[in-house]
Amino acid sequence: MVFPRLARSSLRNSLTGELRSKFVPQLGSSSGGSRSAYYTLVRSAVIADARHPSMVRELSAFKFEARGISIFPQVRSPATERLEENSELESENDDLPGLGPTKPGEKPRVVVLGTGWAGCCFLKGLDTKMYDIVCISPRNHMVFTPLLASTCVGTLEFRSVAEPVSRIQSALSGEPNSYFYLANCIGLDTVKHEVYCQVVPGADKSNENYQFKVAYDKLVIAAGSEPLTFNIEGVKEHALFLREVNHAQEIRKKLLLNLMLCENPGISEEEKKRLLHCVVVGGGPTGVEFSGELSDFIISDVSKRYTHVKDYIHVTLIEANEILSSFDVSLRQYATKHLSKSGVHLVRGVVKEVLPKEIILSDGTRVPYGLLVWSTGVGPSQFIKSLDLPKSPGGRIGVNEWLRVPSADDVFSLGDCAGFIEQTKRPVLPALAQVAERQGKYLAKLFTRIGEQNGGKAYCCTKMVSFGDPFEYKHLGSMASVGRYKALVDLRQNKDGRGISMAGFLSWFIWRSAYLTSVVSWRNRFYVAVNWATTFVFGRDNSRIG
Amino acid sequence: MVFPRLARSSLRNSLTGELRSKFVPQLGSSSGGSRSAYYTLVRSAVIADARHPSMVRELSAFKFEARGISIFPQVRSPATERLEENSELESENDDLPGLGPTKPGEKPRVVVLGTGWAGCCFLKGLDTKMYDIVCISPRNHMVFTPLLASTCVGTLEFRSVAEPVSRIQSALSGEPNSYFYLANCIGLDTVKHEVYCQVVPGADKSNENYQFKVAYDKLVIAAGSEPLTFNIEGVKEHALFLREVNHAQEIRKKLLLNLMLCENPGISEEEKKRLLHCVVVGGGPTGVEFSGELSDFIISDVSKRYTHVKDYIHVTLIEANEILSSFDVSLRQYATKHLSKSGVHLVRGVVKEVLPKEIILSDGTRVPYGLLVWSTGVGPSQFIKSLDLPKSPGGRIGVNEWLRVPSADDVFSLGDCAGFIEQTKRPVLPALAQVAERQGKYLAKLFTRIGEQNGGKAYCCTKMVSFGDPFEYKHLGSMASVGRYKALVDLRQNKDGRGISMAGFLSWFIWRSAYLTSVVSWRNRFYVAVNWATTFVFGRDNSRIG
Repeated sequence: MVFPRLARSSLRNSLTGELRSKFVPQLGSSSGGSRSAYYTLVRSAVIADARHPSMVRELSAFKFEARGISIFPQVRSPATERLEENSELESENDDLPGLGPTKPGEKPRVVVLGTGWAGCCFLKGLDTKMYDIVCISPRNHMVFTPLLASTCVGTLEFRSVAEPVSRIQSALSGEPNSYFYLANCIGLDTVKHEVYCQVVPGADKSNENYQFKVAYDKLVIAAGSEPLTFNIEGVKEHALFLREVNHAQEIRKKLLLNLMLCENPGISEEEKKRLLHCVVVGGGPTGVEFSGELSDFIISDVSKRYTHVKDYIHVTLIEANEILSSFDVSLRQYATKHLSKSGVHLVRGVVKEVLPKEIILSDGTRVPYGLLVWSTGVGPSQFIKSLDLPKSPGGRIGVNEWLRVPSADDVFSLGDCAGFIEQTKRPVLPALAQVAERQGKYLAKLFTRIGEQNGGKAYCCTKMVSFGDPFEYKHLGSMASVGRYKALVDLRQNKDGRGISMAGFLSWFIWRSAYLTSVVSWRNRFYVAVNWATTFVFGRDNSRIG
Repeated sequence: MVFPRLARSSLRNSLTGELRSKFVPQLGSSSGGSRSAYYTLVRSAVIADARHPSMVRELSAFKFEARGISIFPQVRSPATERLEENSELESENDDLPGLGPTKPGEKPRVVVLGTGWAGCCFLKGLDTKMYDIVCISPRNHMVFTPLLASTCVGTLEFRSVAEPVSRIQSALSGEPNSYFYLANCIGLDTVKHEVYCQVVPGADKSNENYQFKVAYDKLVIAAGSEPLTFNIEGVKEHALFLREVNHAQEIRKKLLLNLMLCENPGISEEEKKRLLHCVVVGGGPTGVEFSGELSDFIISDVSKRYTHVKDYIHVTLIEANEILSSFDVSLRQYATKHLSKSGVHLVRGVVKEVLPKEIILSDGTRVPYGLLVWSTGVGPSQFIKSLDLPKSPGGRIGVNEWLRVPSADDVFSLGDCAGFIEQTKRPVLPALAQVAERQGKYLAKLFTRIGEQNGGKAYCCTKMVSFGDPFEYKHLGSMASVGRYKALVDLRQNKDGRGISMAGFLSWFIWRSAYLTSVVSWRNRFYVAVNWATTFVFGRDNSRIG
């Protein structure tokens, strides 16, 4: 590992004032921006070089969580002090325990950040005879996101949509040099080829701030995105998101709690209406499917099992533009009609502010709510923003046609956190499971190709290896359920293309079959089918647990 | 409702100094004692009478929770101020919203506190044509406790052992005057025939301290017990209990977290051993079954899916006396041998203190641990202690042979919180599911009898109604699984009696069949069977959710 060491020291010597000053506003914006990320940035160091601006790196000092409110600055020094601090912090990183670089003769090590669709499809496809894998993520499972909305009301159970990563790639638990680390990545050094990690919250005191580093031969950043809130005040404090299993758990708990609170004697009519007003902001597939599930729950379960309060519960879906804007116009109309018939109140509006008990729209309307679910799309997370790698339009990590980060050796990125750089003249792909899945599979094959050409080790790949065909994305179509055994299926390749688009019961049957067969493991496929069957026979489970 | 009003005012006038002074040490002891209850006491009032010492009542002012550490005194006045305060607090209670007394012509209202085995079996058996029901409990489901240990490691899923109360008694959600209230009972007035309630934590700000009252014709206290900690320092802070579904969730999360933490690079050998040392204190059926489940999990799952750390995980079971002391001696020996063979280290010892990372035994031994589960039996909860009703030996609510609280009109108690008063010359029954179940069924029948004699309304039952046969308990035997498809079945009626006792695979088969058939609903019976089957085929689920 002589080369990276040399490279790094030359980089440090050429650190310029220009880069330092360029650096300051970036720190400001990243600390003041959206804080709702799953990653925790704690350690700070700057390595910069005129030739490699991508290596200017800031690991600043705040902590944000899923529903993040608090900021705990630990290291935040003015730019002038940065050079002196730099060496201290670097030596601090040097002291961290960790996995050192692979030795000659050992298999090259691929480090994967994230266990979403992209990361897991890559993990599943990677040839473990060729590579050792280290997967780092704050959760040890993949979430089958298209079915997550169904778990909020008990149509499906939480564990039926969660797939343990050790079942997706058994090498992680079975191979002697492959590991899964339950940790947050808090920074990376593309020159040293190292990532820095911190254990997730929840460990006992002696381990709660435990940090370590992992050297990589190849790095795959598939760290996902975070919900867009457009900096609207109160969203992070009062709204619930729908991206993780624990979000769905929170929604289910809150919904059941509000139903039961309303039964209590002495609650005013107005308060009952408020508590049982479920508001969904965002008319994309997630928002529409969740609204549909809610109306199913109300029609078939609340009416029977909460008879005292059943007339107070209502669902409102707020969308600034049209719902399901990516779907065919006739499907949109079908969805609108169907949802309205199911009792979902569709409101065209823009949210200005979210208060603890009501939403204020831009036209001044006040909408009282008891449950607020926010699903207005996703954007780059704080962690992705903090990485000084080239960016695509929209702030994702910029990659070329082969999903490689062009200016950093051995770094690849895919899924919601990656986008094509402008030079490729390709559009940034939508943040969809099928994009992530296809990219994961493509990259796994590319890694086999690289490995076959002995390009697996650090700094061995860029110069001598042929990458073959670039990634090509072909959209297979979109599906969305709208409740009461109805769904939309749009098989056009793009918004203006031609192809089949249909809606109704048959589409719903296709929707269920497609998801049932695409659930990752046989165990979960079985449980999804069993859950659907018992929901049909016995109704939804309404125990409020935890 | 003229009579209770009159009764109460006469009681208040005769409040004596003697009773007041008698009252003070009781308050002291109840506030300084065990604080690990599921109930929150907030409001304070004293009603006392020389003829009815049982009605001296203290609803003092602290808040304790399941893992309760904090005490927040709200009202705690010296005894001398009590009389003056009394009227204020009573008028405060008068102002509470709530369900007033039933009117002539309406069905009598039975208020049930608690949704454990006793409460739910009573609810299930109660004739809803004769009575309206109000059930008040901080959880809306019953926990099938004998199978709870299996959920900690994923053999069963959490929802398979939780039965929503609305499925147990459909009148609660379907009848116009029957209700389930998700709330803590914080006090009662046996003269006014009222209970006082506060909503559970988790409600939004505007509702978090919401209190209300419910008038009853008959009151059934089935509020359960709480874990005994013998006032050993550190138990509540650092140990996990195993009584509720969320306790099992916590154990599963902690166990999976520690397994993954150990994989992190740079963790010392000693720390790995500590993190993966699972210590169970208490060798009763719960402790033994949990140890057995843990060893199953280690043998069949950890060895395959945590290969890097599998050699570090160990289970120790600490018991002061013999394990499974209520079982036949040959079964005890079988269990001891079997557990040791499965890798469970059995230690005879008494815990002196629990520190964050180690236990100190009375002989000075220090036992480092990563997971500590405490199951040394149960005792009366803080709520039960705070009620000034007659007590049985051991501090439970004292009842006569018909499960009636002798000095309070229309109050019954059953399950873990009730015990025979000394005058009955009967022993206090053990805190077992089968006792609670039998009592619940008995009381439901007794209530039918009372109803048939038109004794359902308040103050109508004691004088003119024949109660019929008293409650008789016949022990059917005990069962405990010890892991690896082995269990103990002891069908003797008592410790010294005769009868069949056996151990091994056949017993395990009986154990599973017995529990499978006794699970309350078909839905859960189906899920328990499905969970067992998928655990057998696919192994246990190790996603760490939430």
